[in-house]
Amino acid sequence: MAPAHAHKSLKLSHDLPLDSGQVLSGVEIAYETYGELNTDKSNAILICHALTGDQYVASTHPITGKPGWWEAMVGPGKPIDTGRFQVICANVLGSCMGSTGPASPAADGAPYAMRFPVITIRDMVRGLVALLDGLGIAKLHTVVGGSMGGMQALSMAANFPDRAERVLAIATTARHSAQNIAFHEVGRQAIMADPNWNGGDYYGGAEPDAGLAVARMAAHITYLSEEGLTEKFGRRLQDRDAKSFGFDADFQVESYLRYQGSGFTQRFDANSYLYITRAMDYFDLAEEHGGKLANAFAGAKARFCLVSFDSDWLYPTAESRHVVHALNAAGAPVSFVELSAPFGHDSFLLDVPALDRVVKGFLK
Amino acid sequence: MAPAHAHKSLKLSHDLPLDSGQVLSGVEIAYETYGELNTDKSNAILICHALTGDQYVASTHPITGKPGWWEAMVGPGKPIDTGRFQVICANVLGSCMGSTGPASPAADGAPYAMRFPVITIRDMVRGLVALLDGLGIAKLHTVVGGSMGGMQALSMAANFPDRAERVLAIATTARHSAQNIAFHEVGRQAIMADPNWNGGDYYGGAEPDAGLAVARMAAHITYLSEEGLTEKFGRRLQDRDAKSFGFDADFQVESYLRYQGSGFTQRFDANSYLYITRAMDYFDLAEEHGGKLANAFAGAKARFCLVSFDSDWLYPTAESRHVVHALNAAGAPVSFVELSAPFGHDSFLLDVPALDRVVKGFLK
Repeated sequence: MAPAHAHKSLKLSHDLPLDSGQVLSGVEIAYETYGELNTDKSNAILICHALTGDQYVASTHPITGKPGWWEAMVGPGKPIDTGRFQVICANVLGSCMGSTGPASPAADGAPYAMRFPVITIRDMVRGLVALLDGLGIAKLHTVVGGSMGGMQALSMAANFPDRAERVLAIATTARHSAQNIAFHEVGRQAIMADPNWNGGDYYGGAEPDAGLAVARMAAHITYLSEEGLTEKFGRRLQDRDAKSFGFDADFQVESYLRYQGSGFTQRFDANSYLYITRAMDYFDLAEEHGGKLANAFAGAKARFCLVSFDSDWLYPTAESRHVVHALNAAGAPVSFVELSAPFGHDSFLLDVPALDRVVKGFLK
Repeated sequence: MAPAHAHKSLKLSHDLPLDSGQVLSGVEIAYETYGELNTDKSNAILICHALTGDQYVASTHPITGKPGWWEAMVGPGKPIDTGRFQVICANVLGSCMGSTGPASPAADGAPYAMRFPVITIRDMVRGLVALLDGLGIAKLHTVVGGSMGGMQALSMAANFPDRAERVLAIATTARHSAQNIAFHEVGRQAIMADPNWNGGDYYGGAEPDAGLAVARMAAHITYLSEEGLTEKFGRRLQDRDAKSFGFDADFQVESYLRYQGSGFTQRFDANSYLYITRAMDYFDLAEEHGGKLANAFAGAKARFCLVSFDSDWLYPTAESRHVVHALNAAGAPVSFVELSAPFGHDSFLLDVPALDRVVKGFLK
């Protein structure tokens, strides 16, 4: 049986200017589509993925063989209905699933590694807009994203206000807080402390898997709520009746975290992790627009929907509310809902029927 | 000028039995005292230190040269008044400031390293009780501790109910939650991922400083509140006017965390960090006593005071309240106060005048 979706990629014919002042040449944007574009190209929904996500939103991941990361949300008859919309999801600039990133060859044929320019969320959006240009899509029906995907959706609304009719930003923020930056810095230091990182030059050799796994473990805790962790694991032991009085993973939560860490290294590039976390830490939509968030949305033409989760302590409801107030000040139409779900930040990826209803309603 | 306090140490004449079933021989407990013991030895206050604390509660740290970690609280005329009490503070078993721990020589003369037995909070308390025996102190006026020190205070009340008249437990918990364990596991994995860790056998060679620094950075975030981090650092840049578009510590919070991480490695042993975090993760006072926390305090004879801080998300107020309810159920006299302070878990170490008043009042 042929794969439902062949891997797609667009090579940009023009250079991509970056916020750093640098320019990227020969940029490739890998993407997937689900559903058919209608004749006037008015039914496209762009889904922006999160830090460690990718374009396989509703199809099997080519490395892990696992289902798409948002299959509960995207598909025929699903809240984002591929019978009605064409869904596009692209691997962000700086990532490692086909789009240009630190593992890609530079002009000299060797991987960029740390020669890759530091990028921003807006640079990622520039890549996405270039993809839309390449696909001949002048205006999206909706741009959607959770977490870092929500940052991209907001950035597109602020910087490319003609490109989307609707903006759906879930479990996200308009700026990274000190605590957000702090957790990312721990992850970066864990990677850079791994001797295999070798200043970023590890391609073709031993990779900094140990450091990357620690980074993932630290981040993963922030994706879950304290209550969720207690409910899921509590102090239950893993495959044993008593504590080992050793340093094995006695507790289920330890075993789970180790599994999350090691599994992640098989599908993700450590340098991409550095660059993408940096882009997120740099994100401050107000700062980009003279220090006032309402200014960022002064020219916004879309309808907005913001969704937060009450158990999300990474990007708490107050951050969404902050965006909503700015949109109000800018006179943009916006609806906002805080959903109750026990899973913390990860709620946007998990089974939360109320989110399905909100998404479906907003796309009507 | 002679040092105000000579370094003191007691070598136990008996073996120390451990919860693991193992036995430690030749245990040494390093301690400091401040103030004079009265003739009937009834004015002794034992202060139990936290994970990375030590006996230098009110005197200069011999490695860092910094003031004692609780000088605001302990001294002549201070809330814990050394003009009135003799304050004793001992380095816990498993630590690295003179008490027996993984860096200490085993019977064969080489450091224990990972041959050191896994210890528990109760084992630490056994060491403290042995010290009190050595000092001829049958009953403490008060046992006091914050964070892991509070765990020891509660454990002493539960397991050695005759040894303290008063128990003051600050910013602590009767059990480590899944999230608490998760953060510690990240730290341990960071240490063990450092090739210099070398299975624990690094003494006399290069030490796993990079891993230990990452562990400290991750833990440090949990000691501060989100609000405190925002207030202290926000998104302010460090010694620069604009982002570097690189991986230097652009943000003050990054610089601060790196400083915390690297400073810590100069005074702390990585293996001690493994063992002490393990002891904390194993801590579950209810489990020790048939699964019911009230049982732990069934024989308690002390008066209790519990203090929590509203911004502490490591050991939130609910954890203290849980202890208070168990003490109520056991019929023990207990007072409890949640203090408002912006500094998160670290509030107990910082300038919180309300804490001074509570401590002073309880010691009356």
